Amino acid sequence: MSQLNTETPVDVLIYPIEQLREFSERVFLHFGVPQDDARLASEVLATADLRGIDSHGVARLHTYFDLLSIGQINPRPIISIVRENASTATVDGDNGLGLVVGPKANEIAMDKADAVGSGWVSVRNTNHYGIAGYYVLQALKRDQIGWAMTNATKIVAPLWGAERMLGTNPIAIAFPGKEEPPIVIDMATSAVAYGKIEIARRKREPIPYGWAIDKDGNVTVDPGKMIDGGALMPLGLDRETGGHKGFALASMVDILCCVLSGANWGPFAPPFALRQELPSRSVGKGIGHFFGAMRIDGFINPDEFKSQIDEWRRVFKATKPVPGTPGVIIPGDPEREAEAIRAREGVPVVMPVVEDLRDISSKTGIPFD
Amino acid sequence: MSQLNTETPVDVLIYPIEQLREFSERVFLHFGVPQDDARLASEVLATADLRGIDSHGVARLHTYFDLLSIGQINPRPIISIVRENASTATVDGDNGLGLVVGPKANEIAMDKADAVGSGWVSVRNTNHYGIAGYYVLQALKRDQIGWAMTNATKIVAPLWGAERMLGTNPIAIAFPGKEEPPIVIDMATSAVAYGKIEIARRKREPIPYGWAIDKDGNVTVDPGKMIDGGALMPLGLDRETGGHKGFALASMVDILCCVLSGANWGPFAPPFALRQELPSRSVGKGIGHFFGAMRIDGFINPDEFKSQIDEWRRVFKATKPVPGTPGVIIPGDPEREAEAIRAREGVPVVMPVVEDLRDISSKTGIPFD
Repeated sequence: MSQLNTETPVDVLIYPIEQLREFSERVFLHFGVPQDDARLASEVLATADLRGIDSHGVARLHTYFDLLSIGQINPRPIISIVRENASTATVDGDNGLGLVVGPKANEIAMDKADAVGSGWVSVRNTNHYGIAGYYVLQALKRDQIGWAMTNATKIVAPLWGAERMLGTNPIAIAFPGKEEPPIVIDMATSAVAYGKIEIARRKREPIPYGWAIDKDGNVTVDPGKMIDGGALMPLGLDRETGGHKGFALASMVDILCCVLSGANWGPFAPPFALRQELPSRSVGKGIGHFFGAMRIDGFINPDEFKSQIDEWRRVFKATKPVPGTPGVIIPGDPEREAEAIRAREGVPVVMPVVEDLRDISSKTGIPFD
Repeated sequence: MSQLNTETPVDVLIYPIEQLREFSERVFLHFGVPQDDARLASEVLATADLRGIDSHGVARLHTYFDLLSIGQINPRPIISIVRENASTATVDGDNGLGLVVGPKANEIAMDKADAVGSGWVSVRNTNHYGIAGYYVLQALKRDQIGWAMTNATKIVAPLWGAERMLGTNPIAIAFPGKEEPPIVIDMATSAVAYGKIEIARRKREPIPYGWAIDKDGNVTVDPGKMIDGGALMPLGLDRETGGHKGFALASMVDILCCVLSGANWGPFAPPFALRQELPSRSVGKGIGHFFGAMRIDGFINPDEFKSQIDEWRRVFKATKPVPGTPGVIIPGDPEREAEAIRAREGVPVVMPVVEDLRDISSKTGIPFD
């Protein structure tokens, strides 16, 4: 993945977000993705770039391009509800772009919440869906609390396991404020992202204890040993600091997204890249997501809720800070601050990603810079 | 709390679980708790003792006794639904025992799931509810996936915060198997339980890096410095190993349990003990819980789901083990194994807790051993 080539200092070019979004949209259109879907998919990617989650924005476009090129993703999926209840459903994404299947399944969850107070949708036969944070932000527009999870290609070891068995399986949830910004949680259930290991290897620097194991299962500070058949450690690291808890959270995400929908769970999740090893067998269809939405007014007066969220934020921001740190950071604030800057000043794109985009441009004839 | 006095080797007495359960029931009856409620509360406590969660069983009975004695907990609450929707509700526990309010609110969530596919209940004006695992086990009996969370007295610092702001705020969820046992997640969102700090202090041993900070916010390996105005660290420890994620999870629990219901969130949770410092102000009623239940057949054929859970378990159990470890442990298995042994052989109770129970006996006239 191109974002992994990052060096410090990094050569970057700055692009207006609209230019990146429009380029993505045209790339999706090029493969026959319908106009509305191409727009949606490009918006999900742009949300990542705007919010500073560089690994999940245009940095991934070349992989979508690769997989669409070889017909591994269906550009015109017929997304269907396989089974449902007033407040729950399983959706089959017909092997479409996760960037399209995800928003539509999320919409079903939000519609059910509008109707009966909450909606919960498990999704199978889908692909990489971008940042989990995108989905929970949509729920805020409807005065709902949004939840989103997804599984992903195996890269994380369970506690006391010496091989890759789970994806970084993120959990996202958002709560709206009244005068203050929302609280937006969007976190992988591994200790760190894989990209940090790659960066350390390129810089020939050791990684902190607790990020990774080598191929034999020993904790390693050598990034090369993680990459060569090792694995990331779950949030919580060792047994004595709660590694079993990170494993439990990743398992929860895996089961809600995949076992509940009939997707490929655990080590059987198909890879999101060309030329990556295929799982030993298939236990379902595609990867899986899980979305939830709850109407706030099904619990409490929304205005009262939002006022208390404002107060919650103020109280936690006022926590006595640890010396030498910026003090407590409310979940979602770094991303919101990045968004404010990037919407105004443009998005810095590292050169390897710029080269990826130029490569797509030359292969498709869609102009880029 | 008596379980904190544990030494190794520990002097224990062994009691049949039924004797402990019945004693608890009679103590609750002594304070005018209605028969059915006393039975329920004693079953929640006994579930903790059976499953090896010693800190949440009869070890807590003296605190319930204390708080009932001074009238701080209402023995005959009128539990009411404050607001509801087809799939969601807020419940007011009328300051009853959490051990009674919790099961009843959980029942409402499960009933709603039966009716419309899922049920979600936020609870205010309640008290300590025992182990989160108890609640999710109830959902399994109805072919539902159960969720449970609660806030608790402040003891955990947010990342980069130098004071206690959150409880250990657990998350529980359970998934039923077919021929294999269920997968039962029940985990605090702090790195470790407070009890481990107390044990280290009594043994005059250092604690591992990453468990706790001192009163100035510096990470400490001295258990005494945590106890003297310090705090537990969130799951994930430092920034570089994901401490912001543990903080985010604890925040999620705090908001779902308290802000959504109108309970006391964050540092304002009332203490569950006599003679403990009261919060600086009140922002709601009592503490808060959050329960969820989802009908499996609202997503997938339950038989198919359970078969896949069995397969999931087998695949993860077969993970290549890290040398020198027992290999991957499926969430809930240690508790289930403890339950099998203790149901047969009785529950070991450490002497300080035995003395607590004898003290209750002498004060109430209820016979105990």
